[in-house]
Amino acid sequence: MVARKTTNATVTPKGSLETLSQREVQQLRETGSGSVYALFRQCALAILNTGSHSDNAKTILEAYPDFEIRILQQDRGIRLELFNAPADAFVDGEMIASTREMLFSALRDIVYTQSELENKRVDFNSSKGITDYVFHLLRNARTLRAGVEPKIVVCWGGHSISTEEYKYTKVVGHELGLRGLDICTGCGPGVMKGPMKGATISHAKQRNVGGRYLGLTEPGIIAAEAPNPIVNELVILPDIEKRLEAFVRVGHGIIIFPGGAGTAEELLYLLGILMHPDNRDLPFPLIMTGPKKATPYLEQLHEFIGATLGAEAQQRCKIIINDPGQVAREMAQGIHEVTQYRRKQNDAFHFNWLLTIDESFQHPFEPTHENMASLKLTRNQPVHELAAHLRRAFSGIVAGNVKDKGIRRIEQHGPYEIIGDRDIMLPLDRLLQAFVDQHRMKLPGNTAYVPCYKLAT
Amino acid sequence: MVARKTTNATVTPKGSLETLSQREVQQLRETGSGSVYALFRQCALAILNTGSHSDNAKTILEAYPDFEIRILQQDRGIRLELFNAPADAFVDGEMIASTREMLFSALRDIVYTQSELENKRVDFNSSKGITDYVFHLLRNARTLRAGVEPKIVVCWGGHSISTEEYKYTKVVGHELGLRGLDICTGCGPGVMKGPMKGATISHAKQRNVGGRYLGLTEPGIIAAEAPNPIVNELVILPDIEKRLEAFVRVGHGIIIFPGGAGTAEELLYLLGILMHPDNRDLPFPLIMTGPKKATPYLEQLHEFIGATLGAEAQQRCKIIINDPGQVAREMAQGIHEVTQYRRKQNDAFHFNWLLTIDESFQHPFEPTHENMASLKLTRNQPVHELAAHLRRAFSGIVAGNVKDKGIRRIEQHGPYEIIGDRDIMLPLDRLLQAFVDQHRMKLPGNTAYVPCYKLAT
Amino acid sequence: MVARKTTNATVTPKGSLETLSQREVQQLRETGSGSVYALFRQCALAILNTGSHSDNAKTILEAYPDFEIRILQQDRGIRLELFNAPADAFVDGEMIASTREMLFSALRDIVYTQSELENKRVDFNSSKGITDYVFHLLRNARTLRAGVEPKIVVCWGGHSISTEEYKYTKVVGHELGLRGLDICTGCGPGVMKGPMKGATISHAKQRNVGGRYLGLTEPGIIAAEAPNPIVNELVILPDIEKRLEAFVRVGHGIIIFPGGAGTAEELLYLLGILMHPDNRDLPFPLIMTGPKKATPYLEQLHEFIGATLGAEAQQRCKIIINDPGQVAREMAQGIHEVTQYRRKQNDAFHFNWLLTIDESFQHPFEPTHENMASLKLTRNQPVHELAAHLRRAFSGIVAGNVKDKGIRRIEQHGPYEIIGDRDIMLPLDRLLQAFVDQHRMKLPGNTAYVPCYKLAT
Amino acid sequence: MVARKTTNATVTPKGSLETLSQREVQQLRETGSGSVYALFRQCALAILNTGSHSDNAKTILEAYPDFEIRILQQDRGIRLELFNAPADAFVDGEMIASTREMLFSALRDIVYTQSELENKRVDFNSSKGITDYVFHLLRNARTLRAGVEPKIVVCWGGHSISTEEYKYTKVVGHELGLRGLDICTGCGPGVMKGPMKGATISHAKQRNVGGRYLGLTEPGIIAAEAPNPIVNELVILPDIEKRLEAFVRVGHGIIIFPGGAGTAEELLYLLGILMHPDNRDLPFPLIMTGPKKATPYLEQLHEFIGATLGAEAQQRCKIIINDPGQVAREMAQGIHEVTQYRRKQNDAFHFNWLLTIDESFQHPFEPTHENMASLKLTRNQPVHELAAHLRRAFSGIVAGNVKDKGIRRIEQHGPYEIIGDRDIMLPLDRLLQAFVDQHRMKLPGNTAYVPCYKLAT
Repeated sequence: MVARKTTNATVTPKGSLETLSQREVQQLRETGSGSVYALFRQCALAILNTGSHSDNAKTILEAYPDFEIRILQQDRGIRLELFNAPADAFVDGEMIASTREMLFSALRDIVYTQSELENKRVDFNSSKGITDYVFHLLRNARTLRAGVEPKIVVCWGGHSISTEEYKYTKVVGHELGLRGLDICTGCGPGVMKGPMKGATISHAKQRNVGGRYLGLTEPGIIAAEAPNPIVNELVILPDIEKRLEAFVRVGHGIIIFPGGAGTAEELLYLLGILMHPDNRDLPFPLIMTGPKKATPYLEQLHEFIGATLGAEAQQRCKIIINDPGQVAREMAQGIHEVTQYRRKQNDAFHFNWLLTIDESFQHPFEPTHENMASLKLTRNQPVHELAAHLRRAFSGIVAGNVKDKGIRRIEQHGPYEIIGDRDIMLPLDRLLQAFVDQHRMKLPGNTAYVPCYKLAT
Repeated sequence: MVARKTTNATVTPKGSLETLSQREVQQLRETGSGSVYALFRQCALAILNTGSHSDNAKTILEAYPDFEIRILQQDRGIRLELFNAPADAFVDGEMIASTREMLFSALRDIVYTQSELENKRVDFNSSKGITDYVFHLLRNARTLRAGVEPKIVVCWGGHSISTEEYKYTKVVGHELGLRGLDICTGCGPGVMKGPMKGATISHAKQRNVGGRYLGLTEPGIIAAEAPNPIVNELVILPDIEKRLEAFVRVGHGIIIFPGGAGTAEELLYLLGILMHPDNRDLPFPLIMTGPKKATPYLEQLHEFIGATLGAEAQQRCKIIINDPGQVAREMAQGIHEVTQYRRKQNDAFHFNWLLTIDESFQHPFEPTHENMASLKLTRNQPVHELAAHLRRAFSGIVAGNVKDKGIRRIEQHGPYEIIGDRDIMLPLDRLLQAFVDQHRMKLPGNTAYVPCYKLAT
Repeated sequence: MVARKTTNATVTPKGSLETLSQREVQQLRETGSGSVYALFRQCALAILNTGSHSDNAKTILEAYPDFEIRILQQDRGIRLELFNAPADAFVDGEMIASTREMLFSALRDIVYTQSELENKRVDFNSSKGITDYVFHLLRNARTLRAGVEPKIVVCWGGHSISTEEYKYTKVVGHELGLRGLDICTGCGPGVMKGPMKGATISHAKQRNVGGRYLGLTEPGIIAAEAPNPIVNELVILPDIEKRLEAFVRVGHGIIIFPGGAGTAEELLYLLGILMHPDNRDLPFPLIMTGPKKATPYLEQLHEFIGATLGAEAQQRCKIIINDPGQVAREMAQGIHEVTQYRRKQNDAFHFNWLLTIDESFQHPFEPTHENMASLKLTRNQPVHELAAHLRRAFSGIVAGNVKDKGIRRIEQHGPYEIIGDRDIMLPLDRLLQAFVDQHRMKLPGNTAYVPCYKLAT
Repeated sequence: MVARKTTNATVTPKGSLETLSQREVQQLRETGSGSVYALFRQCALAILNTGSHSDNAKTILEAYPDFEIRILQQDRGIRLELFNAPADAFVDGEMIASTREMLFSALRDIVYTQSELENKRVDFNSSKGITDYVFHLLRNARTLRAGVEPKIVVCWGGHSISTEEYKYTKVVGHELGLRGLDICTGCGPGVMKGPMKGATISHAKQRNVGGRYLGLTEPGIIAAEAPNPIVNELVILPDIEKRLEAFVRVGHGIIIFPGGAGTAEELLYLLGILMHPDNRDLPFPLIMTGPKKATPYLEQLHEFIGATLGAEAQQRCKIIINDPGQVAREMAQGIHEVTQYRRKQNDAFHFNWLLTIDESFQHPFEPTHENMASLKLTRNQPVHELAAHLRRAFSGIVAGNVKDKGIRRIEQHGPYEIIGDRDIMLPLDRLLQAFVDQHRMKLPGNTAYVPCYKLAT
């Protein structure tokens, strides 16, 4: 490991952390020394490392073993003291403004999450309670702005894509920005960065100085997918389910770019919600797009949706190949319909209250072998419930592929067994095989892919 | 009773009530129907009646017997529906912007207070807990602004003063505004309005568009002392003690104009705090001033302070007679010292954390005959404790003079007996007699004043 | 003469005088020493004296005989050095912001006027040329703002009116401000101040921070009618005709309050323009109003218009007695029609290009006895031409009453002889007599009024 | 020629063209039909083509042979009507905001230039007169902002450079932006674009929304070097000498990147000015920099300066190789010194009045064979005069290489003869040969370079 250049520094907050009561300062200090310290340190390190493209969580943490961050009380409020911090986060001894902002965003969100938990105010046992919780987290982060016309486009897709696909996401972002639309992603590299980069240029061309680049992340991902420097609003949600809910509640439309099993999981999450009977008439523009070379990928996904969830599900998701202008035009049109609908329903522009999210999508799915084996991949249930089970299947596959806990489970007990109706399992098999063939099943290291699952009927 | 012109209307909020979670909307609706409804209705009526000079709480409430205000839920948030509201609050059918703003300020503060109580998060049993509570109320009202240089001057004094005294407060306000200072008062007529009016003109002359006119009130007073229309920040604190604490924590200096027993109570509150050993070295500009004719009043008060609390207490309170320019210059200079002190101590500009307020000043004093009789008006105690007891004495006299409960107590049990050392009781007697002679003991109606107290040694 | 407190000071400019070329600085320095110096000194003194209510031009100039103002060059631009300036214009040694602003407005306008003259770019011999000149003066003063909706209400009337009339103008201004309208006057006391004062309060109530208080003056008047401190845009037009044109080109509606012969002259100026055939279909709200006591005055004026210019002229000028709310509502409605008309015609909101102003209204009228005697007050001409002659008649009477040159002419040659048709001269006689009876013929000093005119048929 | 997609459209102005007098509208319409029409059409086409990287002036003009642009009068002002305009300048039928802005910048500057000429107000026969002219052009374009701290860095260099050199300019721009500095270039591709692109990203990182990207061009260049879309202030100066003066008067420091003979000309222009005795003590940071591979180029230029103008000239120009951070730090430090100097001298921050520019640098040099042959490249003159002659030599070579007129002259009369002292001609020969060897002598087409000059001693 090469020694990195480091620096020590003191920074004071901007924004909502500027006016704190003594009780809150006390809470923060406890954060700085107590059990959530490791979490904050890890997020802070990821943020300070913004822009160092090639790192993953582990290498970052290893590269700065003696990095420390302390929260100090002073009568006027708090300040952070950093030791052995990555030197690249500073210019002539002063921390770069966006880095400083994100650092305090992380602190803000971690403290708020913690304090809500201690409060016992949140009702985690009801769908409404969880939705309120997500709302409060986002409002506390000042993400929800009353009266602003709908214009947030969520972009989903892989963080590790081909150069051609990456360039395509930039052009799409550019076209979205030309039409005044803002970008929201998961805030790492790849599809999380390309559309923001494109929109930055086109917002400048349109003399639009208030462009929003919203990054929604969670503690488990931020280290691996550090917020790219374009992100100008960073929110750290407490877990993957709250983050997914945040996406669909603040976004006014969603574009799906090429990705792997994770992207498939996201698509199934969204379709599972949109196929819920309550949501059938809700306008929600959803477009799948990619460059010419991505055609086979997009078609396979489309076919899979058709074969498992049916034609109606297929129709909720428009496919546009290699036409960024058309993607942007249709998204703008779709968001226009969302605007009119919300106005008619008197719903908020800043939060999609009318979207029903079944509780099963709000609680985390734990991919044990038992849970995976008992997924209900059969026809004798409403389509949106089948979608929920399929999403869990992909969630398990992602875990078995790349997450610590999942990998250990596979090592101990062998591949997951996934069982279901033949006319569901066959398309699933084809799709998974295609991911493997197209090298979209990304593994740590570059070894050939050995499936972590067996399909059975 | 003459029938007043009324109107029906619907208004939607601006500001912090624009983005509400469904839980919060639910809470609000309960407010609209539940036990705090009467409170909100009363505040709303006072606000809608802003600018109707001659009314007191009772007459306002009686003038609009069928006034109603309902909180309605709609998906995008809330809206208020008003029935039989005072027509003067509207122009061509639209509510005047400042009235609408204050209406939602009242709702905001009442809801917040209520929700904090239900939360059980506030520690009402410790001085720190109460101070944190006041801080959170003010922050929720967006009164606390980080980074703004100290410039809030609190003006205390009577709401019913002579024309000459009223004009004098306007000139002082004008001089303060010329020097860039903002005004904070209890938000009714008289001394609560004059300085704001003067500063409005001088802020305009200095092309200062961000001038703040902060009104701090509480539910028991707002109806009698409706916020004057210049107030552009209204905060409703839950009771008189929280309101007094708010004044001394957000104000950077205090000016005392002529007034009655209530003003004497306020002065003793402040001196009681400033004489606390912890606060001895804390800069806190305090000026007593009035026009030439008010000289006897000011001198009497000054002598009383000297005779009871001593020379040191006298010295914390500068007297300036008939020289508005000098008042403003000394206040500006005093606030300059406050600024430097806070900078040195790293204390917040927006909240005076360093000021120690003894718990005895934070809990309400209940003026029963027993409590009044057991006030400790003796020399054998620290000066700041004597001040606390003297304040309670005045508080009781105010209650016995004008407050419902106090008046009934006097009717039942005769005048309060106030007992103390002779060299305290004599100056007290002289001061009270002077108030009577100068017609500063205001009573409902215009009957001759019959004292509600007997002094004994 | 009591010695006034004076002070010396140096001030630097804000706004358009901040970036000057060396040629322009040179020009300015010449201004400071050359022939226009006396003009600038006089305007500066009037501005520095803002708020000293009782002074007229002569007493001001006499009160500060050794006042001097010098324009100094420095590489970065210019600065003004003042000697023996009125001390009231300063707070703790620093000039009040609005005074400083107006001082540089005066310099800006005087220099621009001068430079346009030297330029020989202005075509003073064509109506279009003069209108362009007025436009350029106003644009240079940044009075013309593209894209702002019409909302400027011009208020005309006397600077010396009864207290009741003054209070009425304040209430009307308050009602205008409640409806978001801005005020433009001739920037002295009386009717020039009242509406601005009322609107200041109502703009604050409506949380309207961009309220405009436009004062249009000319060098001959500014000393006698110093801009009141509410004026936040001051423009000094070169003479009375340019100033009148500026009023009708930037104003979107006009209200006429009680006044004397001068006000009658203004009304005839405006009717003379509105009766021009080109302007017949042009919407231009014009309201005459006053408190109850002013009824006789308003009715007399109205009758006079009817008797001389006819019913159509009467109808262009609505009379509303003692109903400020109604005045404001009708003005708002009238301006709404102006807005729609300009939108339809694609005319600018900021300058009334479509209004035809006959050249005879643009050139000054010199009231010699010969010119007065040859006024054509007869029926055998278009109504708008008769209006022009009547305006000149009043202009002459004003001059004969109060202007130096006019008074001297009357002393030398006796009263003006004004000759015309009997059915014009009789109403004129009645109107003038009424002005005398109501003490609206104001004279320097308080001597009884001796008419400066004789009417003949 | 492939047919390009075109569109018709109407656009209305923003900014200073919004409030026009009728005289000015008339002028503009004459512009639209008169002799300057061709000029405006050409600039407009270049601007509408922004972002089409590969085009040069001729191909653009040929690609849109039937493009037309008309200035229409409407009462409210003007509007532009475009026929057969490049479709890429529009999004869904609406012109991109920056394009529209630049279009009206071009109109503004062309009209102003024209009107100043007609005015006969400019004194072209004095150095001061020309400088005032440049000042007025820049002020009219709102480039000069009073009170803003110095931070404009001019970047000079080739528009056609290697990818490595281009990337280097981006990194330097990024480092400048991190330190809050703004960028000014000649507004085409290559060095004109790279630093702006880098600074865009770092300004965003530093949350600096007011970053300025100033592009100074002239009609003869704009078509070939269309403003890149990042430029947010475009000024079209009337000729190359005014443009060079604008650079050195508004820039607070200059960085020279690799380029060809044109860049050498610019360097000699600047050194010629800085070596003027009046300017010796004037701080003016000047840095030459490039990536490692550009070392030979930079050293050769440096040596040439030493050999011809001497060590003092060498010392005014710091060389930094391959260290963008160091370039930015030294530039920031240099500009800090400029700030202090101007403050001390009371000079404007927005225009370098104190810089003496000899008249010989202000008038265009016409590169006829006769003028080239009579250049005085000898030692017996002040160094800054030698620099002036050397600059003219390079100016001629540029013309002989690429400009229409120059090329025709060479065809007719053979290569220029340039005569001078041996110890000047030898270094010149070496430098020119190096340019040829490094392919920095760019020619239209890709033929081998045949020198347009002969050196003699």
